[in-house]
This record gives sequence, C-alpha cells and structure tokens, in this order.
Amino acid sequence: MILSEARQRFISIVGQESYYDSKADLLAYSYDATPGFQALPDAVLAPSCTEDVKKVVEVCSSYNIPIVPRGSGTNLCAGTCPTQGGIVLLFHKMNKILEIDEDNLTATVQPGVITLNFITEVEKKGLFYPPDPSSMKISTLGGNISENSGGLRGLKYGVTRDYVLGLEVVLANGDIIKTGGKLAKDVAGYDLTRLFVGSEGTLGIVTEATLKLIPKPQSKKTALALYNDLESAARSVSSIIAHKIIPTTLEFLDQPTLQVVEDFAHIGLPTNVEAVLLIEQDGPLHTVEKEMDSIASLCQAHGAISVDVASSEEHAEALRTARRSALSALARLKPTTILEDATVPRSQVAKMVLSIKEIAQKYNLTICTFGHAGDGNLHPTCLTDVRNKEEMYRVEQAFEDIFARALELGGTITGEHGVGEMKAPYLEWKLGEEGIKAMQNLKKSFDPQNILNPGKLFAKDTKKRVVISS
Amino acid sequence: MILSEARQRFISIVGQESYYDSKADLLAYSYDATPGFQALPDAVLAPSCTEDVKKVVEVCSSYNIPIVPRGSGTNLCAGTCPTQGGIVLLFHKMNKILEIDEDNLTATVQPGVITLNFITEVEKKGLFYPPDPSSMKISTLGGNISENSGGLRGLKYGVTRDYVLGLEVVLANGDIIKTGGKLAKDVAGYDLTRLFVGSEGTLGIVTEATLKLIPKPQSKKTALALYNDLESAARSVSSIIAHKIIPTTLEFLDQPTLQVVEDFAHIGLPTNVEAVLLIEQDGPLHTVEKEMDSIASLCQAHGAISVDVASSEEHAEALRTARRSALSALARLKPTTILEDATVPRSQVAKMVLSIKEIAQKYNLTICTFGHAGDGNLHPTCLTDVRNKEEMYRVEQAFEDIFARALELGGTITGEHGVGEMKAPYLEWKLGEEGIKAMQNLKKSFDPQNILNPGKLFAKDTKKRVVISS
Repeated sequence: MILSEARQRFISIVGQESYYDSKADLLAYSYDATPGFQALPDAVLAPSCTEDVKKVVEVCSSYNIPIVPRGSGTNLCAGTCPTQGGIVLLFHKMNKILEIDEDNLTATVQPGVITLNFITEVEKKGLFYPPDPSSMKISTLGGNISENSGGLRGLKYGVTRDYVLGLEVVLANGDIIKTGGKLAKDVAGYDLTRLFVGSEGTLGIVTEATLKLIPKPQSKKTALALYNDLESAARSVSSIIAHKIIPTTLEFLDQPTLQVVEDFAHIGLPTNVEAVLLIEQDGPLHTVEKEMDSIASLCQAHGAISVDVASSEEHAEALRTARRSALSALARLKPTTILEDATVPRSQVAKMVLSIKEIAQKYNLTICTFGHAGDGNLHPTCLTDVRNKEEMYRVEQAFEDIFARALELGGTITGEHGVGEMKAPYLEWKLGEEGIKAMQNLKKSFDPQNILNPGKLFAKDTKKRVVISS
Repeated sequence: MILSEARQRFISIVGQESYYDSKADLLAYSYDATPGFQALPDAVLAPSCTEDVKKVVEVCSSYNIPIVPRGSGTNLCAGTCPTQGGIVLLFHKMNKILEIDEDNLTATVQPGVITLNFITEVEKKGLFYPPDPSSMKISTLGGNISENSGGLRGLKYGVTRDYVLGLEVVLANGDIIKTGGKLAKDVAGYDLTRLFVGSEGTLGIVTEATLKLIPKPQSKKTALALYNDLESAARSVSSIIAHKIIPTTLEFLDQPTLQVVEDFAHIGLPTNVEAVLLIEQDGPLHTVEKEMDSIASLCQAHGAISVDVASSEEHAEALRTARRSALSALARLKPTTILEDATVPRSQVAKMVLSIKEIAQKYNLTICTFGHAGDGNLHPTCLTDVRNKEEMYRVEQAFEDIFARALELGGTITGEHGVGEMKAPYLEWKLGEEGIKAMQNLKKSFDPQNILNPGKLFAKDTKKRVVISS
C-alpha cells in the first residue's frame, strides 16, 4: 500500500502520465517470464532520467517502499516479480544509446535500450557486442546487466559481465555513484562494476552503462552435426576444445527438442537423430575455414552421422533461429514450460545430460534438454501444467535432483538465468551457510532497509539438500 | 605488540619453524617494492594449508591483530607494507599447482605459485595464461589476484580478473568460502569472485584459485616502430584500433626511457628518436602476418620513421625483455624511483603524455614515461631521492597534477598497480564521497573489526583535489 502522500510525491517526480496504478496496469506488471510467480505491485513508475530515479528512491526510502527495477521482464527466475509489493520501475523512457565511441571501442547506453537494437547499431559501425541472450529481441541492456545474461556466443566471448566497463548506479540511499569508465584497466578500489552486474537489482539501480565493444569478426561459418547418441555429441565437444579450438557457439539439442523446434520452424531439421550440435566459428575467413574443417573431422571421428556446413548465410541464420526459438517452440506444447539452467564443467556435460534423462524417467516427466554444450550450461525444460498440483510436485522434486546432481559434478544451480525468487531456496546448496552469510552482509551494507528488490536471492527457508546416489 | 598468549597459539598452528619474529625477519618484511613506506610487523607467519590460515585468522580476530597477506611484495602501492603492525602472512609453503585440467581449460593453484613458473607449466601443455605483469618472474598468483595485475598482453587478453573463475577465501571471521568453479557461466548470487580480485587483501585471504586458460596462440610477431614525435606514435595506436585490429601488445617508451633501457640492456635500441612503439600480435600465422603488414603500413602512414619486424624469436624476446626491464633500468639511475600508473581512455594517450612532459617541466623533475599505450595505461616514472625533502615535495605535487589530469581526461588514478596505502589519499578523487562511503560499508560488512590489511584503500585524510587548467 502506498500512502497518498507518497503517491503525490511520486507523481510530482515522474509526472501523472508516467505513474500507473490502475488494476490493469498493476496486473500487467504482476509477473515476468517465470511460470508460477505472480504478485501485484502497488504502482508502476517510468522515470525519464537518473535524477528522477534518485528522487523516486528517496521517497521509497522515506516510506519503506520496495523497488523492483524491471527491463522487459524476460528473466526466468522471478527476478522482477514484485512479490513484496511496492513499485515496479520501468526504463522504456531511458532507452537511448548515448554514444558509440569508435576510438575507445566503447558504447554508453541507458538501461532501457533493447539488446538487439543495440547489437544492430553497433554492427553498422563494424563493431561487435557479443552477449546475445535468446531473449535479445525484447530484453533490455539494463536487464542483461542485472542478470549477467549469457547467450549463444558465451563459449568464445564470455557473458555480459565481460563487456561492462563502467556503470552509473543509484544506491538505496539515493546516492548516485559512477564506477569504472572507458578504461581497459582500472583498479581504483573494489570492483563495484562487476559486483552490480548480476546483482539482480538488489544492490542498486543501474541508470547508465559503459560497454566494451570489439571489432566485428570478418566471417562466420555455421555447421550442424547429427548424432545417434548423446555421448558422441559430448565427446565431440570435448575433443574440439582439446584440439585448442574455441568455437563461438557449441549448442546442443536433444531429440525431443529437435522435434518440437522442427514442428514449429519447418527448416528441415532432422528429427530422427538422438542429438545435434549447432557449431559456429567466426574470425578471419582463412582461419575459420581451416578450423571448421578440423571441427567437422573431429565430430566425425567421435561418432557424428553427418556434419553439414550451412551453404548460405540464410541457411545459417535459419539454424541459429531454430536454436533461439527452442523455448518458444517448447512453450506451445503444454500450458506450462519450466526452463532450467543447471550448469556443469564442460567435461561433465554427457554425464549431466544422462542424469537429466534418468531423473525425467524417475519422476515420469517430459524433460527436453538443449543448451550451451561448450559452456556446460544446459537448459533442461519441463513441459507441464501448473494447475496439475500432483505433477508440479514431481516437477519440483525432479529439478531438485537436477540441481543436486549439477553440484555433485562441480556445477552450479544457475549458469545464466539468475537466482531471483525462484532459486533462492537452493542458493545455499551452492554457497554454503558461510557464503550466504557473507552475501547477506554485503546486501545489508548496500541496502540496510531492504527496499531494493526484496525477497530475491535470499530465501526465508533453504530447501533440504537431496542426496543423489552417484 | 603480540601478547605471548597469542604468540604461543600462532606457533602451535604453524610450527616454530614457520613463525618469525627476530629483528632481522621483521625488518625483511617491513617494506615492499614501494619507495617511502616502511613499518615493522610484529611477526611473520608462513602457514602451509587453508585450515592453518583459518586458525591464524581466528587468533587474529580474538586479539585484534592486523593481518597483511603478502606474495612476493612486488606491488607498487605499499599494499603489503604492515603500516599498522600485526602479522605478515606468507604463502611460499602454499605454492603448488594443484591441477591443470585440459578438458575444462582450467588450472587450480595455491596462492604462492610464482607467476612465470605457472605460465611456463601451462604453456608446456599448449595452453596459455595471458596475465603477464612485468614482475612475473618473482610475483605470485595470489599477489596478482589481490592486485588484479595487468601486464603487456592486457590490450587483447584483459587482466588477471578476466582469468579467475573461482576462489577459496578465508574471511575475517575464519569462515572458509568457495566462490565460482570450473564454470564458464555461473550467476548463483553476487560475483564475490571478481570482488575479491583486486581487493588487496582487505576483504578476505585467498587460499586457492581456479584460473581460466585458453589455447596457446599458434604464432607471434613482434615489431618496433620509431617516431620523432609523441603525437605520431599516439595517432598510430588509434589508427590500428580504428582499423579493427587488436594487437596483443602496444607498448610505448619515450626517449629518456629508451636511453636508459639501452644503456642497461645493450640490445641496439635506437636512442635518438622521441618515442617507440613495441607492437606484438599473436594468433594463426596467416592472420598474424596479414595484420602485422597492416599495422606496419598504418604506423608509416601516421609518421613512423621506420617499422622493423623482429627477424627471429630471439630478437623479439630481446625487445620484450627490454620493455619489461624498464623499471629495473630506470631504478639504477637515482636512489629512488617512483613508478606511477595513471590511466586514461586510449584516445587520450597523446594528451596525457604531453601533460606529463609539461608537469615534469613545471616542477623541474626527471619523469620518464613508458607503458601500455593500447590500454591507455601509462607509467610516468620519476627519478629522485627520498632523502631530498624539497625535491620529494615537488614530486608529490607533480603526481597530484598527473592524477588530476588523468581524471580530467576520463581516466583513473591507478590502472594496474592498486591503491594500497600510497594512493589511498587520492581514491576519493576517482570515486567521489558517495563511492568511498559505499566501499567502506562493503569493507565493514566483510571485516567489521578491520583486521584485514587495515589502512589500505581508505585514507584518514583525502588530499585536496588540484585544479588543473586544461
């Protein structure tokens, strides 16, 4: 509940036209892309500048009102669901690319810029911004920064964190700070820049970012390798890396995912194989051609039925789009799609995929698996129905088994989707009690009132860790 | 002063042979590579495992004893000078490379491993660990992590932070936490891994690290470009980058530095030119050759008198060694060598070098400048004598002017050397009062007793900011 006094102050800051609290508006921002989480905010605000964000935060601090910063709400961890009410902060009015600096290979942006628009603008200048989350058509750079988004090019180029050089952040007390800059090297104090990246809006509100760009690779090749068994696909991944080749992309899709994607996209994907690897390499043409030849030989040597290099950029784009549309395609089949994000060291991908299969059988569930094989970042995806309480119970059990197994294999509970509210009960499995305590103290030092996205990352109750026989 | 009770407990943990408190021992650890800072610790301990570090920290916590973790003490910010007494913690007994994992391209190491030894071992397996601080022959990986060390290959490959995937850390309360892992992607909670990197031992004590490796580049070429003026050298740097070429190394040396290095190393460096660029590119042979040709043309187009590509690996190594020995060479000339670390956006290098020259003239000082031109990371180096109080006052004034100018140009007070005790009075210039406050709160959340390397990063008094006419 927002007192009318606070409401008046909000309106005087952002203007009547940027303050929403009708039932319909509140409903629209009561959920994000995460199934099973919904809660009404008390109001929705769209500030148009950093100074307004600062003033809004000051009002929230005075009245103890929770603040949920939100990009396009494409996150899959309930990171932007306002589960404790308060205000949702939108950034569509702060959506300018302020500068693309070709001398320093940097860009300065507001948080509301759509990721793909940014990538397109940057590429027009022959430059490259690698982080490419599957949601990039609608996700915002601010959201990507808050979640430290990954993507298909992570294997070679890293994740969002690796491209953030500096930030402007509004802290919980209304202070505006600037971290980093257009600098390749900067060790003046603690690395707050990377601390804010991936902090899910719980430590501060990002109002501007300086991003690192690199030269656009001169050429790119895309190939599809088909397999009759998972192990061969996994062995191919290991052998490519062992041969000192780091492809841009090494994506894995299992048979059920292939089937669904082909039914959805009709691009002629084979559906009668157990697994495919989508492989991309970029760089100077001569090197790319040589490496793609080696990759094809290695895949064949490790049991690929066939390896086809895309004959045209259109064909390559179709393959990439197929992979990117995996979630949308899967989502058509059942009322509820739960996309998970268990991640293991690259060498453990085969074991993890096999375990997921066994766990799906154990709980009698449909789990399709696809993901970034080169990163060890897998997306086991359960097709289900939230209204079926009994099945949902099994789904939860299955995912607990999956997280436990990932950790056993030296992995983590989330590679790129974040913790949010959804995975908070499992965070202690990864970090231990001591790690959680350290992070809670850190959170308190930035936000003693707990008004910045409260309820995220830290759960009231930690789940009991499942013991899996290995 | 350490109470005999605490002394007994320390000895019972690390053993008599790893506890040093003779005058000679204390004197040996009373300073690091930073001129003008010296203070005796109360004792020096060399623990042999994480569990011992934990126990030592617990004793320190009970008796409020400051802890200064120290690698080889090569830092240039007085980061390991025990200015508040207490114990110095050494890691030469924790110096094992625990694993080089060729499947996951990671290595797991103890903090006491010497950087160059590690690089050598890794390269034997065809792998590559890029961070190469000039001190790498004696520096330790633990020290590199604490300082977020840079090096000559930073332009293309980044700094230490970019290669740390996971850490084991002993916190101020004795808790042992593990962050990250052998994972390309991990967003389970705040990024404590990168927060500890560069935190100069003030947030926790690193006892183990998982590092990222990459395939060793297939070939490497080295060139030297000579210039009669600084601007041409700086313009060459900009134009190489603008042509979408990112060399591994783009080092700058001015005439006074060249002279000194040649007198020291006798490798036939030209000493009658105003500036040289040492340029390296690595990668597939075909690409390297093509890019080196382009680089040579660009340098010539922007005013280089000559560009020579090293004819042999021996010659190339001599050039690299010359650059790496710049500090040692300069240090021979005068009793005191103060090496600074002002860093600016790459596009501002020419302006910064010019300003340094003007500032040296203004204060009548000898300042040689060399550094990582591609990173904008310059090392203006003042040759002086700490015993000459009057000159030292001018040195301090000159460096204040240099920091202020770097900040005016969008830079920072330290690119790779750290803040330590030496630059603490200037940190607020970069971060503002609000930024310092946020970092102090963060420090308090990790170390409420202020026993971890106290006095570093945060100064009692901030220097008044000089105003420079631009």
